[in-house]
Amino acid sequence: MATIRDVAKLAGVSVATVSRVLNQNGYVNEDTEKRVRKAIEQLNYKPNEVARTLFKKTSKTIGLIVPDISNPFFPELVRAVEDVMNIYDYTVILCNSDEKNEKEKQYIEVLKQKYVDGIILTTTELAMEEVLELDVPVVILDRPSMPAFPSVVADNYGGARLATRHLYDIGCRKIAHIQGPPHVVNAMQRFSGYRDEMQSLGLWDENLIIQGNYQLKQAKEATLQALKEYQVDGIFAGNDAMAVGALKAVQQLGLRVPEDVAIIGYDGIPLTEMTTPELSTISQPIYEMGAIAARILVKQIEGKPLEQIHYMLPVELIERQSTRREKR
Amino acid sequence: MATIRDVAKLAGVSVATVSRVLNQNGYVNEDTEKRVRKAIEQLNYKPNEVARTLFKKTSKTIGLIVPDISNPFFPELVRAVEDVMNIYDYTVILCNSDEKNEKEKQYIEVLKQKYVDGIILTTTELAMEEVLELDVPVVILDRPSMPAFPSVVADNYGGARLATRHLYDIGCRKIAHIQGPPHVVNAMQRFSGYRDEMQSLGLWDENLIIQGNYQLKQAKEATLQALKEYQVDGIFAGNDAMAVGALKAVQQLGLRVPEDVAIIGYDGIPLTEMTTPELSTISQPIYEMGAIAARILVKQIEGKPLEQIHYMLPVELIERQSTRREKR
Repeated sequence: MATIRDVAKLAGVSVATVSRVLNQNGYVNEDTEKRVRKAIEQLNYKPNEVARTLFKKTSKTIGLIVPDISNPFFPELVRAVEDVMNIYDYTVILCNSDEKNEKEKQYIEVLKQKYVDGIILTTTELAMEEVLELDVPVVILDRPSMPAFPSVVADNYGGARLATRHLYDIGCRKIAHIQGPPHVVNAMQRFSGYRDEMQSLGLWDENLIIQGNYQLKQAKEATLQALKEYQVDGIFAGNDAMAVGALKAVQQLGLRVPEDVAIIGYDGIPLTEMTTPELSTISQPIYEMGAIAARILVKQIEGKPLEQIHYMLPVELIERQSTRREKR
Repeated sequence: MATIRDVAKLAGVSVATVSRVLNQNGYVNEDTEKRVRKAIEQLNYKPNEVARTLFKKTSKTIGLIVPDISNPFFPELVRAVEDVMNIYDYTVILCNSDEKNEKEKQYIEVLKQKYVDGIILTTTELAMEEVLELDVPVVILDRPSMPAFPSVVADNYGGARLATRHLYDIGCRKIAHIQGPPHVVNAMQRFSGYRDEMQSLGLWDENLIIQGNYQLKQAKEATLQALKEYQVDGIFAGNDAMAVGALKAVQQLGLRVPEDVAIIGYDGIPLTEMTTPELSTISQPIYEMGAIAARILVKQIEGKPLEQIHYMLPVELIERQSTRREKR
């Protein structure tokens, strides 16, 4: 493989001159530049990415930290980020933090050492000071917590009100909510939406809150328990995995969905089309969220102005069998 | 931040000596080494990863090429690779090839430019010559096609025989197979297992083959079509997504699962527990496959001998409601 020295030799210039041409900085005589470019072409020389990284402190690489890629919400998000980054010639280092502060810190240290050009964070275990110290562009995706940074989220509060209202509209009056983990911002926003809608409908009752952790199995157990203690005719689950858990619990108790208990999830992952009955859900534009986050990260890296700092994307009610009742 | 020059100055040695200590190559007097290590500690000096990459042509980074992370088989595999690589201080660049030769080539070019230390390939659109040219260690994961490289796969052929035999054992005699894409090695291995088992049972009939492409929706349509033309009492789907498609088709036609048509999938992804009825499947040790591939890649990078070149992991029959019949 040709080196920068071969190029310099063939063009009859110094290595420093070739470097100036490659990096487009410093003055180079027009004729000289032509000779260098011709030599580059003749030798099929490819500038060494790593050397460029060292010189320019840019690596054409970004870090993407997710809690856990095997949580079914994240693959589509990751795919979108990677697709867009690929268009702009960036590669993506994927990190699974398990929402542990220590793991996040370790990854960020590694990413800094590799001169990543930017980081997309979907978890928020870090303190704002820690993120500010990063001195590379950061975009917060899905779980907003630090207004100082650009962010892309969907309308969790509005989506939760929509879900609750939908259950009311089909005739439910004892509407339970399976809540996500208390430390996760979007879970709390969804809870607030549910609470406010229930209060405005005059149906608010603390006993109808089921504590979940975004996992299917735990949600199933918690729902089984709750249904033994209280009568419920509708369930709004804080994410789709928990909605599947609720569906299994209701079916296990010999109740019918949607006739006895209607169920609606949140996220709109493909899974919701695979259950029987298919699950109604509040669909987030997952791919679009990832794509926008990637685009605004690239803009920041390139020093271009952002049209908008905080994106809140609209969500959509998807009505399927789990809330489709004949009678009103 | 302290530089290598600061360390050299404090220790009273040359930069080259510090470099020898850091990289553990070349002779350094024991006392000198102690002084250097002390200076490193005092200054909290962290060697610049990028400079090390340039010097050693190693980046502590690997490339992982998957067809599509949003295909539900891959998140767990990717997670396993990342977990193990993290233990050994490597980061993982994730690439989605969409099984396109051109995209794979482009990614590999980029990965080479970044001096990745190794690559894990789950797709096989490349010719062997192209892979041989990579001059970094390569591990083939899930889709074996090039015996020249270490590989980790599960027993696709045996698993397919097991699935077919299981349907026979519960009383099925007209057992259809929804085949995966013809260009995917593991799909063909599963097909061979099905064919051989059907032949040895004396039940082989070409008409019972349904052409699928590993996607749910297409499998549903193809199954609907097939069930209108032929009578079938069991379906072995080449992967779990297609098994869900088959389940939906059978239910749409008003047939019962498993009483009228029993269904078994392949892979063992979490999805199979979420359907009603829950799906029987041949479970591959997905996480273990990814973890072993990562470990043998690290061994190769470190120049350690491999105990084994080709790993074929056993699969397991998971019996659930979709093949549970009272009568025999």
